[in-house]
Amino acid sequence: MNRSDLDTPVAVVDLDRMEANIAGLQSYLSEHGIANRPHIKTHKSPFIAHKQLAAGAIGITCQKLGEAEVMAQAGCADIFLPYNLIGSQKLDRLAALAHYITISVTADSPEVIDGLADRFSNEPAPLTVLVECDTGGGRCGAQSPETAVLLARQIAMAPGLHFGGLMTYPCSDATDPFMAETKALLAADGVAVERVSGGGCPKMWQAHTWREVTEYRVGTSIYGDRKCVQVGVMTYNQCALSVIVTVVSRPTADRVIVDAGSKTLTSDTNGLDGHGYIVEYPEAQIYGLSEEHGHVDFSGCDARPAIGERVTIIPNHCCTVSNMFDEVVGVRGDRIEMRLLIAARGRLR
Amino acid sequence: MNRSDLDTPVAVVDLDRMEANIAGLQSYLSEHGIANRPHIKTHKSPFIAHKQLAAGAIGITCQKLGEAEVMAQAGCADIFLPYNLIGSQKLDRLAALAHYITISVTADSPEVIDGLADRFSNEPAPLTVLVECDTGGGRCGAQSPETAVLLARQIAMAPGLHFGGLMTYPCSDATDPFMAETKALLAADGVAVERVSGGGCPKMWQAHTWREVTEYRVGTSIYGDRKCVQVGVMTYNQCALSVIVTVVSRPTADRVIVDAGSKTLTSDTNGLDGHGYIVEYPEAQIYGLSEEHGHVDFSGCDARPAIGERVTIIPNHCCTVSNMFDEVVGVRGDRIEMRLLIAARGRLR
Repeated sequence: MNRSDLDTPVAVVDLDRMEANIAGLQSYLSEHGIANRPHIKTHKSPFIAHKQLAAGAIGITCQKLGEAEVMAQAGCADIFLPYNLIGSQKLDRLAALAHYITISVTADSPEVIDGLADRFSNEPAPLTVLVECDTGGGRCGAQSPETAVLLARQIAMAPGLHFGGLMTYPCSDATDPFMAETKALLAADGVAVERVSGGGCPKMWQAHTWREVTEYRVGTSIYGDRKCVQVGVMTYNQCALSVIVTVVSRPTADRVIVDAGSKTLTSDTNGLDGHGYIVEYPEAQIYGLSEEHGHVDFSGCDARPAIGERVTIIPNHCCTVSNMFDEVVGVRGDRIEMRLLIAARGRLR
Repeated sequence: MNRSDLDTPVAVVDLDRMEANIAGLQSYLSEHGIANRPHIKTHKSPFIAHKQLAAGAIGITCQKLGEAEVMAQAGCADIFLPYNLIGSQKLDRLAALAHYITISVTADSPEVIDGLADRFSNEPAPLTVLVECDTGGGRCGAQSPETAVLLARQIAMAPGLHFGGLMTYPCSDATDPFMAETKALLAADGVAVERVSGGGCPKMWQAHTWREVTEYRVGTSIYGDRKCVQVGVMTYNQCALSVIVTVVSRPTADRVIVDAGSKTLTSDTNGLDGHGYIVEYPEAQIYGLSEEHGHVDFSGCDARPAIGERVTIIPNHCCTVSNMFDEVVGVRGDRIEMRLLIAARGRLR
């Protein structure tokens, strides 16, 4: 069966491109002595995670506990979960995971550390906890090296916990100074920082410029998307995930409607205008989405697609689009090779 | 088990409110002699569809063929699928459905009608096809009554098809004049318009003001959402779908991070500022989403939630949020009554 036999809308992964993306990142990070810990939030596929590990990744990153459970049960033995885990239900599940894989988490408050410490005080082995630091991302994280130090001390002193280092997202110009200062303060206490975990796709090829970062987390680059191209870290010819759609209506001279809307492409613009790049008609603008219709303006194009014609969309943000599908189709060129099961799709807890 | 026992993030449906929403819409449409054909795109649950049919709906509306298959196999016997169906795979599935339920579809081009006519020319019964009309929505649909008439004639003359009437979305001031003119032109040909199907949630309580509309399609009002409240068709106390989340970080005095991001609440703002309404803190602003984190500004609030505190979010757009979950939890008050399976989630084809 070939790509043209697939009914639409359908998400397709070009396996050759994906494997090249895996190899390219691994090669770059290895060259610079940085541990590669890819983020599986993008693909949510154990099959792909195993490919990343086989290429040289030291472990994987998951964003939710439910994702980690899927990956652990599929054989991923070293998982980093950089998230504040709260509540007895999640802590029990975390303890269960810690019985059979190597797992590390993060915390950015005394409350989160207290919860982890209570739960792991009677576990056979301590839980490794890193301190999340806000080095400009403006999401979670300690706001200053002084606060990070207080949290690190709290972890180091808790019987059930092991202080595992520092983590931030995304890396920025503020990352090195923040990490260096925190390390210096902790060194005065005799507390070693064994690992500094950084991440972020838009600056992935600058990972070697952060001298303090010892491991790097990237998700998006496994597939790539319109945003990756716009910020210059990938080209369209490297983008491995696309959505094939069919033109279902041409109500006016310039308006074309395709059979993929916000329930396929998502409303996640990733900060860009429009909702994707149409490979066959680069000048076309996907200017709007209803739930099952994509609204495309062809006024800037020389040609117009016929009703029934299929076109290929590179989405703005591959991570959220991949998450809409229970399975995608793995292809090599035009040949269909496999159903790729998105086993961790929708694992929100 | 109670609502407070549920781990987060979790989508909860208040069954009492949902049933009141079903009854309220049915009562209104029945009072005005308008057939009720609710759109299941919002809930994607056969259980809820059966409740709507039991309340008096004449049938249901689905937006994709895969949704219709789920609903048909769950016992929904009359389905309207207002979508241009193209290609042999979909047409074969449509023919299979037509063997065991009453199904009607739409078309807005000669090409789509040709495809339907070819496929159904040797079927035992003709397929009912309505002409989609663009009465201001700017999506699919014939752009003028004259074009609608040409399409209606093409359907009426095709041996495998039955002309079923006219359809539009959403209803507007232009709907009645467009429909009346089309009907008059067709009457001159001796072609009867047996059904005019309109729809749209924001103007649902005006359905009786469109004199030409004989049936009405609404999805969103089964649950309601922040948009419904903003446009004045529902109150927050009527909103049946909410997402319970936990505060996982308070990195600064005003910034609060919750455990639901764009993979839970979606990036679909529905044209509003922010990403949802927090019931317990109405002045809080969900100003940003990353994939698994919601970024909330509490600067406008008198109180701040503690880390670990749970809050309740009414999303901007219930239809796209419901579609993120394989199941939601049905509650009455605080008591958990059932797992509600979102059986048609992700049925994009």
